[in-house]
Amino acid sequence: MSFNIEDHPHKRYNPLNGDWILVSPHRAKRPWQGQVEKPVVQKRPKYDPNCYLCAGNERAGGKVNPDYKGTFVFTNDFSALLTDTPDGSINDGELFQAQSESGICKVICFSEDHSLTIPEMEVSDIRKVVDLWCEQYSELGENPAINYVQIFENKGAIMGCSNPHPHGQIWSSKGIPTEPSKESKTQKEYFEKHGRTMLLDYVNAELEKKDRLLDQNDSFVALIPFWAVWPFEAMIISKRPVQNILELTEEERSDLADIYKKLTLMYDNLFETSFAYSAGLHQAPTDGEDHPEWHLHMHFYPPLLRSATVKKFMVGYEMLGTPQRDITAEGAAKRLRDLPKIHFKKN
Amino acid sequence: MSFNIEDHPHKRYNPLNGDWILVSPHRAKRPWQGQVEKPVVQKRPKYDPNCYLCAGNERAGGKVNPDYKGTFVFTNDFSALLTDTPDGSINDGELFQAQSESGICKVICFSEDHSLTIPEMEVSDIRKVVDLWCEQYSELGENPAINYVQIFENKGAIMGCSNPHPHGQIWSSKGIPTEPSKESKTQKEYFEKHGRTMLLDYVNAELEKKDRLLDQNDSFVALIPFWAVWPFEAMIISKRPVQNILELTEEERSDLADIYKKLTLMYDNLFETSFAYSAGLHQAPTDGEDHPEWHLHMHFYPPLLRSATVKKFMVGYEMLGTPQRDITAEGAAKRLRDLPKIHFKKN
Ligand SMILES: O=P(O)(O)O[C@H]1O[C@H](CO)[C@@H](O)[C@H](O)[C@H]1O
Ligand SMILES: O=P(O)(O)O[C@H]1O[C@H](CO)[C@@H](O)[C@H](O)[C@H]1O
Repeated sequence: MSFNIEDHPHKRYNPLNGDWILVSPHRAKRPWQGQVEKPVVQKRPKYDPNCYLCAGNERAGGKVNPDYKGTFVFTNDFSALLTDTPDGSINDGELFQAQSESGICKVICFSEDHSLTIPEMEVSDIRKVVDLWCEQYSELGENPAINYVQIFENKGAIMGCSNPHPHGQIWSSKGIPTEPSKESKTQKEYFEKHGRTMLLDYVNAELEKKDRLLDQNDSFVALIPFWAVWPFEAMIISKRPVQNILELTEEERSDLADIYKKLTLMYDNLFETSFAYSAGLHQAPTDGEDHPEWHLHMHFYPPLLRSATVKKFMVGYEMLGTPQRDITAEGAAKRLRDLPKIHFKKN
Repeated sequence: MSFNIEDHPHKRYNPLNGDWILVSPHRAKRPWQGQVEKPVVQKRPKYDPNCYLCAGNERAGGKVNPDYKGTFVFTNDFSALLTDTPDGSINDGELFQAQSESGICKVICFSEDHSLTIPEMEVSDIRKVVDLWCEQYSELGENPAINYVQIFENKGAIMGCSNPHPHGQIWSSKGIPTEPSKESKTQKEYFEKHGRTMLLDYVNAELEKKDRLLDQNDSFVALIPFWAVWPFEAMIISKRPVQNILELTEEERSDLADIYKKLTLMYDNLFETSFAYSAGLHQAPTDGEDHPEWHLHMHFYPPLLRSATVKKFMVGYEMLGTPQRDITAEGAAKRLRDLPKIHFKKN
């Protein structure tokens, strides 16, 4: 019997953040008697008088939303980072080190329509979200006190999202956050060695291998990375090496909207539910330097494992030992790829 | 206004795993309209005919549990790691790397009494759990195919635990898992530089500073580490530098049982609920080498934040940027320290 990654427990290496993950392909068969999530209620009104993100409504802080159509951005009423934090640090020996951190946090409403989600929006309307990301990345990035702009979306109550109105967030900061700074390091090393971005080589290899591909258009590929941790973790990677979203052409912006919809629609169709995830863009820091090593991509971390109500728990061994998954990346990709391309609600 | 860590957003450094974490002390005030967990049902029978861990019952795999009293250990019927995995690896360029992984997974029942949890058990009965950990660490560690023995407990449905019967697990492996291998590296560097273990210096500094201490006995300290990520994350650290649990004296084993109960009892009393957590021992690898740099400790990662039903979600910014917490370690320690020392159910 010789080792193969379809059947045997193994570790895979994530060259983008330098971590290993454990894969136990045989383990999906174990019975589940644990926690069952509430299925997502499918029908929401287009306007909810109690939603603090709907147009015209009052927010928790007392401010009133304008009567917006399309996208709408505002500074988070409960920002984790603030602009007026004094500089400073604590260096009480090697074991007690702290540094002040400042930044700007924003909320982005994707649409005035409370009932929608990305996979149910028109590509032309998602394009408006992409345009707003570009505006915000540019505006925040030009601020000398902001060196990283983290754009993300938490979707679904099981992903800590406290409001089902379609929206995302931006947390921008003086410091470069942990994950992008790991990716900066690995991408830089690769670029210095090969003269090409790591993700350019990676995406081309995956286009050839095909077994982890989910979908593609002229400008972007959606795939399950070889080193995925979450059961249906995915990435969207630009086919062309671009450092950040501002380098995208008009057509490429629309293609990003298109692939964002295609991937999240597969997700919804997998268990015929509004599929929860955290997703976000990783791109070059806005520290005023050129970053030819940085290759724009988006990560998707969805928790569901077996059904609309049974998720993967990253606990115990995952927290104390090594992150672990119960199905292979290839198996997950095949399941998503083979789904119908029309949203289940329209059937 | 000068920078201080009680009021201002800041980053703290974790010297044990090399990561930074973001602290937003002002953020606990934001309102919560998100997911609410099911409160834990307080009363369970001493024996449940449907529990696959109760004495005399049949397990999912068809095996029957003996009529045990006290602790009981068996090989996990759905082990993530197996002993017969063939050796091998994949090295398809820098971007596609995998290695076979093998090991032995076990389940440890803490008591025949289905209704109990660690904070409700007698110290003398928890001591039997510590003794079983020692036996297992010794037996598995002597196996030349096992280089790390990860002992842990997932408690509570919200921590992915599928059975409320008091139990823990052991996943032992040929490879050294990610977290212990990061801690090996940092502890080794520290030990080579100072000739003392990092956690000896750390625990002594905390005993002097006092503001993050929770409790102590002759042999162990329970505290909220300076770099805690989860709201009430805690550590138990031995006062004396010991590499692994086999080096503990009889008295120290009982003291470990005692502090394990004291900490989890504070947890239960905080929100007057059976407090969920993942916890586990970190100790020297069983790779046949001497590890003077390794200092035995136990991590506790509990998810609850505001009440028995509202947890912290590590999502979005935490996954894509930097782990973030909404209260300070010092504030969390004070709240736990000030609680009554008798279990709320006994009041
Ligand atoms: O082994 P169990 O209890 O079935 O499963 C639980 O613990 C494991 C080890 O921490 C995790 O991998 C699982 O996600 C979790 O649900
Ligand atoms: O900002 P929100 O939606 O209130 O909160 C949510 O997203 C944040 C950023 O990912 C997390 O820190 C919170 O734990 C989560 O509940």
